[in-house]
Parts: sequence; C-alpha cells; structure tokens
Amino acid sequence: MKIGDTHYRTIWCDDPQKGVDIIDQTRLPFKFDTVTLNSSQDAFDAIRNMLVRGAPLVGATAAYGVALAMRDNPSKSNLSSTLAHMETARPTAINLHWALQRMNDVLNTASEQERASLAFKEAAALCDEDVALCESMGNHGLTLIQKIAKNKKGDTVNILTHCNAGWLATVDWGTALAPMYKAHEAGIKIHIWVDETRPRNQGAFLSAYELGAAGVPHTVIVDNAGGHLMQHGLVDLCLVGTDRTTRSGDVCNKIGTYLKALAAKDNNVPFYVCAPSPSIDFSIDDGLKDIPIEQRDPKEVSHIPGRDSSNQVVEIDILPTGSTARNDAFDVTPAKYITGLITEKGIVAAEREAISSLFSDRVPTNGC
Amino acid sequence: MKIGDTHYRTIWCDDPQKGVDIIDQTRLPFKFDTVTLNSSQDAFDAIRNMLVRGAPLVGATAAYGVALAMRDNPSKSNLSSTLAHMETARPTAINLHWALQRMNDVLNTASEQERASLAFKEAAALCDEDVALCESMGNHGLTLIQKIAKNKKGDTVNILTHCNAGWLATVDWGTALAPMYKAHEAGIKIHIWVDETRPRNQGAFLSAYELGAAGVPHTVIVDNAGGHLMQHGLVDLCLVGTDRTTRSGDVCNKIGTYLKALAAKDNNVPFYVCAPSPSIDFSIDDGLKDIPIEQRDPKEVSHIPGRDSSNQVVEIDILPTGSTARNDAFDVTPAKYITGLITEKGIVAAEREAISSLFSDRVPTNGC
Repeated sequence: MKIGDTHYRTIWCDDPQKGVDIIDQTRLPFKFDTVTLNSSQDAFDAIRNMLVRGAPLVGATAAYGVALAMRDNPSKSNLSSTLAHMETARPTAINLHWALQRMNDVLNTASEQERASLAFKEAAALCDEDVALCESMGNHGLTLIQKIAKNKKGDTVNILTHCNAGWLATVDWGTALAPMYKAHEAGIKIHIWVDETRPRNQGAFLSAYELGAAGVPHTVIVDNAGGHLMQHGLVDLCLVGTDRTTRSGDVCNKIGTYLKALAAKDNNVPFYVCAPSPSIDFSIDDGLKDIPIEQRDPKEVSHIPGRDSSNQVVEIDILPTGSTARNDAFDVTPAKYITGLITEKGIVAAEREAISSLFSDRVPTNGC
Repeated sequence: MKIGDTHYRTIWCDDPQKGVDIIDQTRLPFKFDTVTLNSSQDAFDAIRNMLVRGAPLVGATAAYGVALAMRDNPSKSNLSSTLAHMETARPTAINLHWALQRMNDVLNTASEQERASLAFKEAAALCDEDVALCESMGNHGLTLIQKIAKNKKGDTVNILTHCNAGWLATVDWGTALAPMYKAHEAGIKIHIWVDETRPRNQGAFLSAYELGAAGVPHTVIVDNAGGHLMQHGLVDLCLVGTDRTTRSGDVCNKIGTYLKALAAKDNNVPFYVCAPSPSIDFSIDDGLKDIPIEQRDPKEVSHIPGRDSSNQVVEIDILPTGSTARNDAFDVTPAKYITGLITEKGIVAAEREAISSLFSDRVPTNGC
C-alpha cells in the first residue's frame, strides 16, 4: 500500500548482504520509520518486541530470519538451532510455525552452498504468496460487502474491525482490511468502526493510520462500544483477522475478539473472519484447550504512548501507584459464533467438514 | 472510606455559607484534591465535567446544587429554573432526576424564608440515606460472596467489575464495590478484576485506586480481557453498578457492561447489578428504546491523562492525525442477561413482577 506517493510492503529485501528492511510498527502512527534486520536475532527481536506483528507478517519475518542465519552460517546445526529459537519468538500465531516448517522443508536437504540463496528465495516467495492470498481474500470479501451494499440500496455499509488485520499485519493488502480496500476501490460507500484494541492500541494506532492513508472513512471507538453500536443497527458486518484457526473453525485472535463475536450473534450481525490457509492449524480441534495464549508484559497495559501538548511522543503510566495489571494477548472465539471464514479459496463455514473439504491438500492423513 | 487515616465522604457541607465540598475525581489517581462548590452553577459544572460522577453521587451533588441556589435566591422562579437547568447536566442517570424531584417535593410548597435551610437539610438527608442504602446493598451482596467462598472451600473468590461503582461513585461505601469491602472486612479471600473502562478509565483510575487504598487485592485488565478470563474459569462473579434500571430489569450502565454480561451468560458466570432503588426508573420498560444515551466529547477517547517519566501528569493524544472518534457513554444490558439485582431491600430477579413487588411503594399507580 502507499504511504504518501511511495508503495511499501511491510518487509522487503533488496540485497541479502545488506539485510532485510521492515517498518518499525511500534512507532506508528506517530512516526514512520524503517529498520534493517541484519541477523536472525534481529528478526527474532523484531517479532518478540512487536516491531512487526500480525500473524502473516510474523511468519514472513521469521522466514527472512532463517535466511539471514543461513547467510551467516549455512550449517545444518545452525539451521536447526535457528528454527528452534525462532519458534519461541511468539507462541500463539500458527503462521510462525508454518513459515518455519516451510523453510525447513526447503533447506533441510539442501547443500550448505545453496542454503542461503534458497532461503532468501523461499522467504521472498512466501512474501509474494502472502500478497496473493490477501488480495484473493480481499476479492472474496468484496462480494460480501457488495451484497450488503445492494440490500442497503447504496447506503453506507458500516463495518466493525478489531485490532489491525490490515496491510501492516501482512506483507501487503491485509486480511480483514483487504475487502475494505477492494470495496473502497470499487466505489462502494463504506465506513469502518475501528476498535481501539487495548492494550497495544493496534486499532487506533495502525488500522486508523492505514485506513486514513488510503482515504477510507473510519471512526475510532473504544473496545467497549461495539456491542452498543450493534444493538442500535449501526454495524452491518464484522470483519476480523486470526492468529490461529483450528480445523473445526475456532478462531484465536486479538484479545476482545470473542466479546464482539458474542455481540454480533446477539444482534444478528454477520461476523466473518479473514483466515488465509497458513493461519489454519489442521492439528487441533479445540481452540480453548489447545491454543497457547501468550501472556505479555503488564507494562503494555499500564503504559501508553502518545503525543503530548508539544507534539512530542511520550509514554504515560495510567495506573495508581501499587496497582498491577495482567496482559493476555489473545482470546478464542468458538466456531459457533462465526458466520464464516473468508479464505483465499473462497468463503467457507467455520466447520470441520467444510474446512477440510476446501483444503483437502493440507489436512494431515494421520489425523493429527 | 478512608484516604490514609482520614475518613472522607465524596461530598460534604460543613457550613452552607462556605459552600459544598467534593473530591475532584478528574485528578485521581494522580492527585487527591478537594474542590468547593459555591453556587448551583458550580454543582452543574462539576456534574457535567465529571469532577463528580457515578449515578448516586450525581444525584447528591444535584441536590446540593439546588440548596446552593436556594441559599442565594430562594424564590419559586429560581427553584424552577434551577431544577430545569440541573436536569440537563447529564441525561442518562435517573438518580439525577430522582434527586431533583425529591428536592422539588420538599421545596415547592415551602416558604421562601425556610427554603434554603430545608434544602440543605434535605440534601444532607439524601446523602445519609445513600450511605445507608449502599451499606445495606453491601450486606446483601456479602451473602452472595459468602456462598461462593463456601463452594470454593476457602479459595479466593474472583470478582470482575466494570467502571467505578465504588464509594467514589456514591456518597460512601459504593454500590458494586460495597459487597467487596464487606467481604474483605469479613476476612473472605477475594480478588477483583478491574476493567480499565475506556475511555475515561474509571476502573483503572478510580476502582483500582480505592480498592488499593482499602487493601483489597485487585488486578487491572483491559476491557477486552474479561470474556477470556471467564472462558478459563477465572471469574466467579460479576458485580457492576447501574445508571438507570427499567421496571423490567434492563440496566443502563457504563459502555461495555453489555459485553461482559454476554460473556458471563455464555460462561455461566453469575452477573449481578447493584441497583439501589433511586436508580430504578419505574416509568419505563424497554432500556434500549427508552433510555437516552449520552454522547460525550470524542476528545475523551483520543486524549488520556497519566504520569510521564518525570512523574508529571500530562495528557497525550493517541489518534493518528486526521482520525476521529465517537464516544457513547453508556450501553443497555437486557434483563435476560442479568442474574439478579442487589438492592437495599435484598436480592431480586431482574423481572418486572419481582421488582414491582419489592418496591410496591415506588410503582406509579397510573402505569407510567
């Protein structure tokens, strides 16, 4: 997508010797900065500290992290230890595991001489494929928005989204925001309710930023407000992303997604999850039992960055002295609350049979 | 309740000539400051700008606002215009209307000479009664917590609360927090999950502050987290306040309450509302249709106060340039999601029959 007149992806590599470039998302929306990753550890830290975030982009960054490791030391033992280390950067998003598995499949049997170049090639391919998946989800999601717009006879379609599942969460286009960009491009009148998404404010900081940059009308709301808006007919559709989808359609996404899904169900608002196939974990059924939920630093709850009255970026502490916080990063929305999954292959019910049949090539034959 | 060694109410009047004192709640938890209201307009502004907030305290402040007006000009026309003006300070909480109605009942037929002293006497009585109501709700709520503690065989009882319905929201004791203080005093092991409560952060700023001051174990969570905690068995009970309760048991409370009630229902967690009778509006049935929801300044969403790294209180702007926000202050939780109402007369089902029978003296005979 464009920042001003320049088209950016969220991660790119012009020359392996010079490293891999990313946008430092911890500084958005207050500053647009790029950072160069020069080692596998840089990539690990960028994921862990959320300079990059969003399941697809986490996967892409991990792949480039492996490539950087292979550039510096292409031995099999370094491959193994890099894969094992990188796997621990963040526990919840399955894309990380999927990308590392894919790198291993390509590199494991390769010769030391070819490992680095193969690794950069595979990471680049994975990025290109992510862009294609996202654009495809965008087109499938567009058909949904077109239907709603038709039912509303051209009135503005109000879409609620949680967290950031935009181009900043992927390599380009985004997952949940891709259909919005496609609809906006197609001239459909849309307006986006952007959940602030505490504690890291990815809605207010990133979704609002990128929707604004693309000229898509939007309004930031606190995470508490979505249910009330749905009760009053002000939401036509919910579109969110996913960090891990089980084979039966449970969705693990940013903390608070579950509450919006409950409200959508209670108010007959369609609740769709944009789930590219790399987000689907075909080895598990029960999202609540089987997906590890990352516990992050309570400081992310107590401390918030923003611009002070002199337009300087400062971080403030909002808690009373002596009070502490807890910071669960994700929650699980059971499949029964999900109207459908928008995948790169089309829209599918959040049900085991439907998912398996659409992705029959990905389902493990041994049942795990 | 105590701040350090000093017992405070949230509003008090030692000498009508010297005005009425309140705690400036917009400065908590960073600074404990009191402010003197010297006129009816001061009281109006304190309500409108949320120096005082919480439905019961808003009612008490409005009553004292009328008393200050009568001190300065006890004419009948000033009484009428003060009542009419004060009514518009905030639209949602019914206690405001109830307190003004009560002042009118006492003052309307009184002579000009006695109006001021009667008004201060009535405002003081209203405050004393609020304290008694809250303490009584505390005792009724305590029985609930005792039962849960018994079922848990002495394990800690985890209670989730939203916004601030503590002593800072009332004259003393609080509504939803009163049972917690009673349980803590009774030696029951409790731990409170405090919803941050964006946008004004009354959970993080006020509930955490007063629970901390009283030594009650608590943890601040973002508003997104409660559903996830309930899914994992980490919440035994939800206790919240109300700004207006319909005669059929719908509850209008701080925005986001509805989402927690949905999650409580989905996870079989008891969801109780502490509803003193002045919060019940016997003239309406349907909370969603009949309660006006206050729209407040979007700046409350975009701007957050806190302490910077030099411990100075500053306000930061968290929105990207060009993005706007919307700020609905309350939502309505339909009665079907409420396990029961804790009133000063005992615990009652959130149902028209049960409420009418408990408060038969308050039900209008003409049906409206």
